[in-house]
Amino acid sequence: MTMKLYFAPGACSFVPHTLLETIGEPFEAQMVKLHKGEQNSPEYRAVNPRGQVPVLVDGDAVITQIVAIVDYLDRKYPQQGFLPTAPLERAKALETLAWMNNTVHPTFTHVFMPFKFSDKPEVQAELKAYNAQLYRPMLADIEAMAVRARDKGHPFLSGAHFGPIDAYALTLLRWGGFAGIDPTGFPTLWAHVQKVAALPAVARAIARERLQLNVFQAA
Amino acid sequence: MTMKLYFAPGACSFVPHTLLETIGEPFEAQMVKLHKGEQNSPEYRAVNPRGQVPVLVDGDAVITQIVAIVDYLDRKYPQQGFLPTAPLERAKALETLAWMNNTVHPTFTHVFMPFKFSDKPEVQAELKAYNAQLYRPMLADIEAMAVRARDKGHPFLSGAHFGPIDAYALTLLRWGGFAGIDPTGFPTLWAHVQKVAALPAVARAIARERLQLNVFQAA
Ligand SMILES: N[C@@H](CCC(=O)N[C@@H](CS)C(=O)NCC(=O)O)C(=O)O
Ligand SMILES: N[C@@H](CCC(=O)N[C@@H](CS)C(=O)NCC(=O)O)C(=O)O
Repeated sequence: MTMKLYFAPGACSFVPHTLLETIGEPFEAQMVKLHKGEQNSPEYRAVNPRGQVPVLVDGDAVITQIVAIVDYLDRKYPQQGFLPTAPLERAKALETLAWMNNTVHPTFTHVFMPFKFSDKPEVQAELKAYNAQLYRPMLADIEAMAVRARDKGHPFLSGAHFGPIDAYALTLLRWGGFAGIDPTGFPTLWAHVQKVAALPAVARAIARERLQLNVFQAA
Repeated sequence: MTMKLYFAPGACSFVPHTLLETIGEPFEAQMVKLHKGEQNSPEYRAVNPRGQVPVLVDGDAVITQIVAIVDYLDRKYPQQGFLPTAPLERAKALETLAWMNNTVHPTFTHVFMPFKFSDKPEVQAELKAYNAQLYRPMLADIEAMAVRARDKGHPFLSGAHFGPIDAYALTLLRWGGFAGIDPTGFPTLWAHVQKVAALPAVARAIARERLQLNVFQAA
Protein backbone atom coordinates (compact mmCIF):
# COMPACT_ATOMS: atom_id res chain seq x y z
CA MET A 1 0.00 0.00 0.00
CA THR A 2 1.66 3.26 -1.07
CA MET A 3 1.39 6.31 1.17
CA LYS A 4 -0.33 9.43 -0.09
CA LEU A 5 0.56 13.02 0.71
CA TYR A 6 -1.74 15.97 0.18
CA PHE A 7 0.48 18.98 -0.44
CA ALA A 8 0.40 22.51 -1.81
CA PRO A 9 3.36 23.96 -3.70
CA GLY A 10 5.57 26.03 -1.42
CA ALA A 11 3.44 25.37 1.66
CA CYS A 12 4.57 23.75 4.90
CA SER A 13 3.68 20.38 3.38
CA PHE A 14 7.15 20.67 1.84
CA VAL A 15 8.47 19.24 5.14
CA PRO A 16 6.84 15.79 4.88
CA HIS A 17 7.20 15.92 1.09
CA THR A 18 11.00 15.92 1.41
CA LEU A 19 10.87 13.15 4.02
CA LEU A 20 8.86 10.91 1.70
CA GLU A 21 11.29 11.59 -1.15
CA THR A 22 14.16 10.76 1.20
CA ILE A 23 12.57 7.46 2.24
CA GLY A 24 12.54 6.64 -1.45
CA GLU A 25 9.52 4.36 -1.61
CA PRO A 26 6.88 5.20 -4.23
CA PHE A 27 4.17 7.49 -2.86
CA GLU A 28 1.27 9.42 -4.31
CA ALA A 29 1.62 13.20 -4.25
CA GLN A 30 -1.80 14.81 -4.42
CA MET A 31 -1.72 18.56 -5.10
CA VAL A 32 -4.24 20.83 -3.35
CA LYS A 33 -4.58 24.27 -4.94
CA LEU A 34 -4.88 26.56 -1.94
CA HIS A 35 -5.21 29.72 -4.09
CA LYS A 36 -8.29 28.13 -5.67
CA GLY A 37 -9.70 27.26 -2.23
CA GLU A 38 -9.61 23.51 -2.88
CA GLN A 39 -8.84 22.98 0.82
CA ASN A 40 -12.40 24.08 1.55
CA SER A 41 -14.16 21.75 -0.90
CA PRO A 42 -16.44 19.13 0.67
CA GLU A 43 -14.17 16.41 -0.80
CA TYR A 44 -11.10 17.81 0.91
CA ARG A 45 -12.91 18.58 4.17
CA ALA A 46 -13.85 14.88 4.25
CA VAL A 47 -10.10 14.12 4.33
CA ASN A 48 -9.13 16.95 6.69
CA PRO A 49 -12.02 18.79 8.36
CA ARG A 50 -9.58 21.57 9.31
CA GLY A 51 -8.99 22.33 5.61
CA GLN A 52 -5.21 22.41 5.59
CA VAL A 53 -2.25 20.62 4.10
CA PRO A 54 -0.30 18.47 4.82
CA VAL A 55 -2.24 15.25 5.24
CA LEU A 56 -0.48 11.89 5.16
CA VAL A 57 -2.55 8.81 4.37
CA ASP A 58 -1.03 5.42 5.15
CA GLY A 59 -3.59 2.64 4.84
CA ASP A 60 -6.19 3.38 7.52
CA ALA A 61 -4.15 6.19 9.04
CA VAL A 62 -5.07 9.74 8.03
CA ILE A 63 -2.63 12.02 9.82
CA THR A 64 -2.56 15.81 9.90
CA GLN A 65 -0.11 18.12 11.67
CA ILE A 66 3.54 18.22 10.71
CA VAL A 67 4.71 17.22 14.19
CA ALA A 68 2.54 14.09 14.14
CA ILE A 69 3.53 13.16 10.57
CA VAL A 70 7.23 13.62 11.36
CA ASP A 71 7.02 11.40 14.47
CA TYR A 72 5.06 8.79 12.51
CA LEU A 73 7.61 8.64 9.68
CA ASP A 74 10.51 8.72 12.13
CA ARG A 75 9.14 5.67 13.92
CA LYS A 76 8.27 3.83 10.72
CA TYR A 77 11.69 4.51 9.13
CA PRO A 78 14.11 4.76 12.07
CA GLN A 79 17.08 4.07 9.77
CA GLN A 80 16.57 7.51 8.19
CA GLY A 81 17.46 9.29 11.44
CA PHE A 82 14.92 12.06 10.77
CA LEU A 83 15.06 12.83 14.50
CA PRO A 84 18.03 12.07 16.75
CA THR A 85 17.63 9.09 19.07
CA ALA A 86 19.71 10.24 22.05
CA PRO A 87 17.20 11.70 24.56
CA LEU A 88 18.73 15.17 24.90
CA GLU A 89 19.43 15.62 21.18
CA ARG A 90 15.97 14.37 20.35
CA ALA A 91 14.36 16.76 22.84
CA LYS A 92 16.29 19.72 21.41
CA ALA A 93 15.32 18.74 17.85
CA LEU A 94 11.64 18.45 18.82
CA GLU A 95 11.91 21.77 20.67
CA THR A 96 13.08 23.43 17.46
CA LEU A 97 10.50 21.65 15.33
CA ALA A 98 7.70 22.65 17.71
CA TRP A 99 8.91 26.27 17.85
CA MET A 100 9.10 26.51 14.06
CA ASN A 101 5.62 25.04 13.88
CA ASN A 102 3.85 26.98 16.66
CA THR A 103 5.69 30.32 16.54
CA VAL A 104 7.67 31.03 13.36
CA HIS A 105 5.15 29.50 10.95
CA PRO A 106 2.11 31.25 12.57
CA THR A 107 4.00 34.56 12.58
CA PHE A 108 4.34 34.21 8.81
CA THR A 109 0.65 33.29 8.59
CA HIS A 110 -0.11 36.75 10.03
CA VAL A 111 1.80 38.24 7.08
CA PHE A 112 0.50 35.93 4.36
CA MET A 113 -3.06 35.23 5.54
CA PRO A 114 -3.90 38.01 8.02
CA PHE A 115 -7.60 37.40 7.34
CA LYS A 116 -7.27 34.32 9.57
CA PHE A 117 -7.02 36.64 12.59
CA SER A 118 -9.33 39.53 11.75
CA ASP A 119 -12.04 40.34 9.23
CA LYS A 120 -11.17 44.07 9.17
CA PRO A 121 -8.92 45.15 6.27
CA GLU A 122 -7.15 47.86 8.32
CA VAL A 123 -6.39 45.39 11.12
CA GLN A 124 -5.09 42.92 8.54
CA ALA A 125 -2.73 45.56 7.13
CA GLU A 126 -1.37 46.25 10.61
CA LEU A 127 -0.90 42.56 11.33
CA LYS A 128 0.96 42.09 8.06
CA ALA A 129 3.44 44.89 8.75
CA TYR A 130 3.97 44.19 12.45
CA ASN A 131 4.43 40.46 12.08
CA ALA A 132 6.87 40.82 9.17
CA GLN A 133 9.03 42.70 11.67
CA LEU A 134 8.65 39.90 14.23
CA TYR A 135 9.59 37.34 11.57
CA ARG A 136 13.05 38.74 10.87
CA PRO A 137 14.61 38.03 14.31
CA MET A 138 13.11 34.53 14.17
CA LEU A 139 15.06 33.89 10.97
CA ALA A 140 18.10 35.30 12.78
CA ASP A 141 17.52 32.63 15.45
CA ILE A 142 17.58 29.95 12.76
CA GLU A 143 20.73 31.54 11.27
CA ALA A 144 22.31 31.15 14.74
CA MET A 145 21.30 27.46 14.72
CA ALA A 146 22.98 27.03 11.33
CA VAL A 147 26.14 28.68 12.68
CA ARG A 148 26.15 26.38 15.72
CA ALA A 149 25.65 23.29 13.55
CA ARG A 150 28.51 24.36 11.24
CA ASP A 151 30.79 25.06 14.21
CA LYS A 152 30.07 21.62 15.64
CA GLY A 153 30.81 20.03 12.27
CA HIS A 154 27.22 18.84 11.91
CA PRO A 155 26.16 18.54 8.28
CA PHE A 156 22.49 19.13 9.20
CA LEU A 157 20.64 21.28 11.71
CA SER A 158 19.73 18.41 14.03
CA GLY A 159 23.00 16.53 13.58
CA ALA A 160 24.19 13.84 11.20
CA HIS A 161 21.06 13.33 9.11
CA PHE A 162 18.83 15.42 6.90
CA GLY A 163 15.48 15.85 8.59
CA PRO A 164 12.37 17.96 9.16
CA ILE A 165 14.26 20.87 10.69
CA ASP A 166 16.35 21.35 7.57
CA ALA A 167 13.26 21.22 5.37
CA TYR A 168 11.31 23.60 7.62
CA ALA A 169 14.28 26.01 7.73
CA LEU A 170 14.30 26.06 3.93
CA THR A 171 10.56 26.74 3.83
CA LEU A 172 10.65 29.48 6.47
CA LEU A 173 13.62 31.26 4.90
CA ARG A 174 11.97 31.04 1.48
CA TRP A 175 8.75 32.51 2.92
CA GLY A 176 10.82 35.39 4.27
CA GLY A 177 11.23 36.52 0.67
CA PHE A 178 7.46 37.06 0.46
CA ALA A 179 7.68 39.14 3.65
CA GLY A 180 10.34 41.37 2.05
CA ILE A 181 13.27 39.71 3.80
CA ASP A 182 16.36 38.96 1.72
CA PRO A 183 17.52 35.38 2.44
CA THR A 184 21.13 36.22 1.59
CA GLY A 185 21.12 38.44 4.71
CA PHE A 186 21.37 35.17 6.69
CA PRO A 187 24.52 33.85 5.01
CA THR A 188 25.12 30.61 6.92
CA LEU A 189 21.48 29.62 6.79
CA TRP A 190 21.23 30.57 3.11
CA ALA A 191 24.29 28.43 2.31
CA HIS A 192 22.78 25.56 4.30
CA VAL A 193 19.43 25.87 2.56
CA GLN A 194 21.10 25.82 -0.85
CA LYS A 195 23.05 22.70 0.14
CA VAL A 196 19.84 21.05 1.36
CA ALA A 197 18.01 22.03 -1.83
CA ALA A 198 20.68 20.23 -3.84
CA LEU A 199 20.15 16.88 -2.09
CA PRO A 200 18.62 14.60 -4.74
CA ALA A 201 15.52 13.83 -2.64
CA VAL A 202 14.90 17.47 -1.79
CA ALA A 203 15.57 18.50 -5.38
CA ARG A 204 12.83 16.10 -6.50
CA ALA A 205 10.34 17.69 -4.09
CA ILE A 206 11.38 21.16 -5.28
CA ALA A 207 10.93 20.09 -8.90
CA ARG A 208 7.46 18.62 -8.25
CA GLU A 209 6.41 21.82 -6.45
CA ARG A 210 8.16 23.97 -9.12
CA LEU A 211 9.73 26.13 -6.40
CA GLN A 212 12.08 29.01 -6.86
CA LEU A 213 14.31 29.09 -3.79
CA ASN A 214 14.86 32.84 -3.56
CA VAL A 215 11.60 34.73 -4.07
CA PHE A 216 12.84 38.01 -2.56
CA GLN A 217 12.47 41.08 -4.75
CA ALA A 218 14.22 44.28 -3.77
CA ALA A 219 11.69 47.11 -3.36
CA MET B 1 19.21 14.29 40.39
CA THR B 2 15.68 15.68 40.70
CA MET B 3 14.05 17.33 37.72
CA LYS B 4 13.02 20.96 37.88
CA LEU B 5 10.02 22.58 36.23
CA TYR B 6 9.63 26.30 35.69
CA PHE B 7 5.90 26.99 35.71
CA ALA B 8 3.41 29.82 36.05
CA PRO B 9 0.07 29.32 37.80
CA GLY B 10 -2.68 28.61 35.29
CA ALA B 11 -0.35 28.77 32.28
CA CYS B 12 0.28 26.03 29.74
CA SER B 13 3.05 24.73 32.02
CA PHE B 14 0.17 23.00 33.80
CA VAL B 15 0.54 20.24 31.18
CA PRO B 16 4.05 19.07 32.17
CA HIS B 17 3.27 19.94 35.81
CA THR B 18 0.56 17.27 35.92
CA LEU B 19 2.81 14.75 34.16
CA LEU B 20 5.54 15.23 36.78
CA GLU B 21 3.01 14.81 39.57
CA THR B 22 1.74 11.65 37.88
CA ILE B 23 5.27 10.22 37.62
CA GLY B 24 5.43 10.68 41.35
CA GLU B 25 9.18 11.23 41.79
CA PRO B 26 10.22 14.31 43.77
CA PHE B 27 10.78 17.34 41.53
CA GLU B 28 11.41 21.00 42.09
CA ALA B 29 8.58 23.32 41.04
CA GLN B 30 9.95 26.80 40.39
CA MET B 31 7.28 29.47 40.03
CA VAL B 32 7.74 32.26 37.46
CA LYS B 33 5.49 35.27 38.01
CA LEU B 34 4.47 36.23 34.49
CA HIS B 35 2.34 39.19 35.64
CA LYS B 36 5.49 40.63 37.24
CA GLY B 37 7.47 40.05 34.05
CA GLU B 38 9.86 37.61 35.70
CA GLN B 39 10.07 35.71 32.39
CA ASN B 40 11.99 38.69 31.01
CA SER B 41 14.59 38.96 33.79
CA PRO B 42 18.20 38.29 32.76
CA GLU B 43 18.23 35.30 35.13
CA TYR B 44 15.24 33.70 33.46
CA ARG B 45 16.38 34.57 29.94
CA ALA B 46 19.58 32.68 30.75
CA VAL B 47 17.40 29.59 31.29
CA ASN B 48 15.02 30.22 28.36
CA PRO B 49 16.05 32.99 25.96
CA ARG B 50 12.49 32.98 24.56
CA GLY B 51 11.16 34.08 27.94
CA GLN B 52 8.36 31.58 28.37
CA VAL B 53 7.26 28.75 30.60
CA PRO B 54 7.40 25.75 30.72
CA VAL B 55 11.04 24.76 30.98
CA LEU B 56 12.03 21.31 32.17
CA VAL B 57 15.54 20.85 33.53
CA ASP B 58 16.83 17.29 33.88
CA GLY B 59 20.54 17.22 34.62
CA ASP B 60 22.22 18.78 31.58
CA ALA B 61 19.01 18.88 29.59
CA VAL B 62 17.14 22.19 29.49
CA ILE B 63 14.02 21.60 27.44
CA THR B 64 11.40 24.12 26.35
CA GLN B 65 8.24 23.54 24.29
CA ILE B 66 5.42 21.38 25.59
CA VAL B 67 5.64 18.96 22.67
CA ALA B 68 9.34 18.33 23.32
CA ILE B 69 8.86 17.99 27.08
CA VAL B 70 5.96 15.57 26.61
CA ASP B 71 7.96 13.37 24.22
CA TYR B 72 10.93 13.44 26.58
CA LEU B 73 8.88 12.37 29.62
CA ASP B 74 6.99 9.79 27.57
CA ARG B 75 10.26 8.16 26.53
CA LYS B 76 11.77 8.37 30.01
CA TYR B 77 8.67 6.93 31.71
CA PRO B 78 7.07 4.64 29.11
CA GLN B 79 5.14 2.79 31.82
CA GLN B 80 2.98 5.91 32.33
CA GLY B 81 1.49 5.64 28.85
CA PHE B 82 1.38 9.43 28.44
CA LEU B 83 1.16 8.85 24.68
CA PRO B 84 -0.23 5.70 23.07
CA THR B 85 2.34 3.31 21.62
CA ALA B 86 0.37 1.86 18.68
CA PRO B 87 1.48 3.89 15.62
CA LEU B 88 -1.94 5.13 14.50
CA GLU B 89 -3.18 5.96 18.02
CA ARG B 90 0.10 7.70 18.78
CA ALA B 91 -0.10 9.74 15.57
CA LYS B 92 -3.66 10.83 16.34
CA ALA B 93 -2.67 11.80 19.90
CA LEU B 94 0.29 13.84 18.66
CA GLU B 95 -1.96 15.40 16.02
CA THR B 96 -4.29 16.60 18.76
CA LEU B 97 -1.44 17.73 21.01
CA ALA B 98 0.17 19.68 18.15
CA TRP B 99 -3.15 21.27 17.15
CA MET B 100 -3.87 22.34 20.72
CA ASN B 101 -0.36 23.76 20.92
CA ASN B 102 -0.11 25.52 17.55
CA THR B 103 -3.72 26.57 16.95
CA VAL B 104 -5.98 26.57 20.02
CA HIS B 105 -3.39 27.90 22.46
CA PRO B 106 -2.19 30.73 20.09
CA THR B 107 -5.81 31.68 19.40
CA PHE B 108 -6.22 32.25 23.13
CA THR B 109 -2.95 34.19 23.18
CA HIS B 110 -4.59 36.67 20.78
CA VAL B 111 -7.32 37.18 23.41
CA PHE B 112 -5.09 37.25 26.49
CA MET B 113 -1.91 38.86 25.18
CA PRO B 114 -2.92 40.65 21.95
CA PHE B 115 0.10 42.93 22.36
CA LYS B 116 2.19 40.01 21.10
CA PHE B 117 0.76 40.60 17.61
CA SER B 118 0.40 44.38 17.37
CA ASP B 119 1.54 47.45 19.26
CA LYS B 120 -1.64 49.41 18.40
CA PRO B 121 -4.34 49.38 21.12
CA GLU B 122 -7.22 49.49 18.62
CA VAL B 123 -5.78 46.53 16.71
CA GLN B 124 -5.33 44.67 20.00
CA ALA B 125 -8.99 45.25 20.89
CA GLU B 126 -10.06 43.85 17.52
CA LEU B 127 -7.82 40.82 17.89
CA LYS B 128 -9.23 40.12 21.35
CA ALA B 129 -12.83 40.15 20.18
CA TYR B 130 -12.33 38.32 16.89
CA ASN B 131 -10.17 35.55 18.33
CA ALA B 132 -12.51 34.94 21.27
CA GLN B 133 -15.08 34.06 18.61
CA LEU B 134 -12.62 31.71 16.89
CA TYR B 135 -11.86 30.06 20.21
CA ARG B 136 -15.39 28.85 20.89
CA PRO B 137 -15.66 26.37 17.96
CA MET B 138 -12.23 25.04 18.88
CA LEU B 139 -13.54 24.14 22.32
CA ALA B 140 -16.50 22.55 20.54
CA ASP B 141 -13.97 20.39 18.66
CA ILE B 142 -12.50 19.27 21.98
CA GLU B 143 -16.01 18.61 23.31
CA ALA B 144 -16.52 16.33 20.27
CA MET B 145 -13.30 14.51 21.18
CA ALA B 146 -14.59 14.00 24.71
CA VAL B 147 -17.85 12.60 23.34
CA ARG B 148 -15.96 10.20 21.04
CA ALA B 149 -13.73 9.03 23.92
CA ARG B 150 -16.78 8.45 26.14
CA ASP B 151 -18.60 6.56 23.37
CA LYS B 152 -15.58 4.31 22.87
CA GLY B 153 -15.40 3.64 26.60
CA HIS B 154 -12.02 5.39 26.88
CA PRO B 155 -11.45 6.89 30.30
CA PHE B 156 -9.09 9.52 28.84
CA LEU B 157 -8.93 11.57 25.66
CA SER B 158 -6.07 9.59 24.13
CA GLY B 159 -7.21 6.22 25.42
CA ALA B 160 -6.51 4.23 28.56
CA HIS B 161 -4.13 6.58 30.36
CA PHE B 162 -4.16 10.11 31.66
CA GLY B 163 -1.84 12.22 29.54
CA PRO B 164 -0.97 15.63 28.10
CA ILE B 165 -4.14 15.92 26.05
CA ASP B 166 -6.33 15.66 29.13
CA ALA B 167 -4.24 18.27 30.94
CA TYR B 168 -4.19 20.60 27.92
CA ALA B 169 -7.96 20.19 27.49
CA LEU B 170 -8.44 21.24 31.11
CA THR B 171 -6.21 24.28 30.61
CA LEU B 172 -7.84 25.36 27.35
CA LEU B 173 -11.38 24.98 28.70
CA ARG B 174 -10.40 26.89 31.83
CA TRP B 175 -8.91 29.70 29.71
CA GLY B 176 -12.21 29.87 27.85
CA GLY B 177 -13.68 31.34 31.03
CA PHE B 178 -11.33 34.33 30.68
CA ALA B 179 -12.56 34.71 27.09
CA GLY B 180 -16.16 34.87 28.30
CA ILE B 181 -16.99 31.28 27.41
CA ASP B 182 -18.95 29.22 29.94
CA PRO B 183 -17.28 25.80 30.34
CA THR B 184 -20.56 24.17 31.31
CA GLY B 185 -21.71 24.83 27.74
CA PHE B 186 -19.47 21.88 26.76
CA PRO B 187 -21.03 19.31 29.07
CA THR B 188 -19.06 16.17 28.20
CA LEU B 189 -15.76 18.02 28.20
CA TRP B 190 -16.62 19.82 31.43
CA ALA B 191 -17.48 16.50 33.10
CA HIS B 192 -14.21 15.04 31.81
CA VAL B 193 -12.19 18.00 33.04
CA GLN B 194 -13.75 17.76 36.48
CA LYS B 195 -12.93 14.05 36.60
CA VAL B 196 -9.34 14.76 35.53
CA ALA B 197 -9.03 17.54 38.12
CA ALA B 198 -9.96 15.04 40.82
CA LEU B 199 -7.12 12.64 40.01
CA PRO B 200 -4.75 12.84 43.00
CA ALA B 201 -1.74 13.86 40.85
CA VAL B 202 -3.69 16.53 38.99
CA ALA B 203 -5.26 17.75 42.22
CA ARG B 204 -1.76 18.29 43.64
CA ALA B 205 -0.78 20.41 40.62
CA ILE B 206 -4.02 22.39 40.95
CA ALA B 207 -3.36 22.96 44.63
CA ARG B 208 0.23 24.13 44.03
CA GLU B 209 -0.98 26.53 41.32
CA ARG B 210 -4.02 27.53 43.46
CA LEU B 211 -6.32 27.19 40.47
CA GLN B 212 -10.03 27.69 40.37
CA LEU B 213 -11.38 25.40 37.67
CA ASN B 214 -14.28 27.51 36.50
CA VAL B 215 -13.27 31.16 36.11
CA PHE B 216 -16.22 32.14 33.91
CA GLN B 217 -18.26 35.08 35.12
CA ALA B 218 -21.62 35.80 33.52
CA ALA B 219 -21.63 39.33 32.05
N1 LIG C 1 -0.36 23.25 12.19
C1 LIG C 1 -0.47 22.75 10.84
C2 LIG C 1 -0.32 23.90 9.89
C3 LIG C 1 -0.79 23.61 8.54
C4 LIG C 1 -0.86 24.86 7.68
O1 LIG C 1 -0.65 25.98 8.17
N2 LIG C 1 -1.15 24.65 6.38
C5 LIG C 1 -1.31 25.77 5.49
C6 LIG C 1 -0.24 25.80 4.41
S1 LIG C 1 1.37 26.18 5.07
C7 LIG C 1 -2.65 25.63 4.80
O2 LIG C 1 -3.06 24.53 4.42
N3 LIG C 1 -3.35 26.75 4.63
C8 LIG C 1 -4.57 26.79 3.90
C9 LIG C 1 -5.64 27.43 4.71
O3 LIG C 1 -5.45 27.57 5.93
O4 LIG C 1 -6.66 27.78 4.11
C10 LIG C 1 0.59 21.68 10.61
O5 LIG C 1 1.57 21.63 11.36
O6 LIG C 1 0.43 20.85 9.71
N1 LIG D 1 5.02 27.07 22.36
C1 LIG D 1 5.29 27.17 23.78
C2 LIG D 1 4.29 28.12 24.36
C3 LIG D 1 4.68 28.59 25.72
C4 LIG D 1 3.79 29.73 26.18
O1 LIG D 1 2.92 30.21 25.44
N2 LIG D 1 3.99 30.13 27.44
C5 LIG D 1 3.25 31.25 27.97
C6 LIG D 1 2.34 30.83 29.12
S1 LIG D 1 1.00 29.80 28.56
C7 LIG D 1 4.24 32.25 28.54
O2 LIG D 1 5.25 31.88 29.15
N3 LIG D 1 3.97 33.53 28.31
C8 LIG D 1 4.74 34.59 28.85
C9 LIG D 1 5.18 35.51 27.80
O3 LIG D 1 5.09 35.16 26.61
O4 LIG D 1 5.61 36.61 28.15
C10 LIG D 1 5.21 25.79 24.39
O5 LIG D 1 4.63 24.88 23.80
O6 LIG D 1 5.80 25.58 25.47
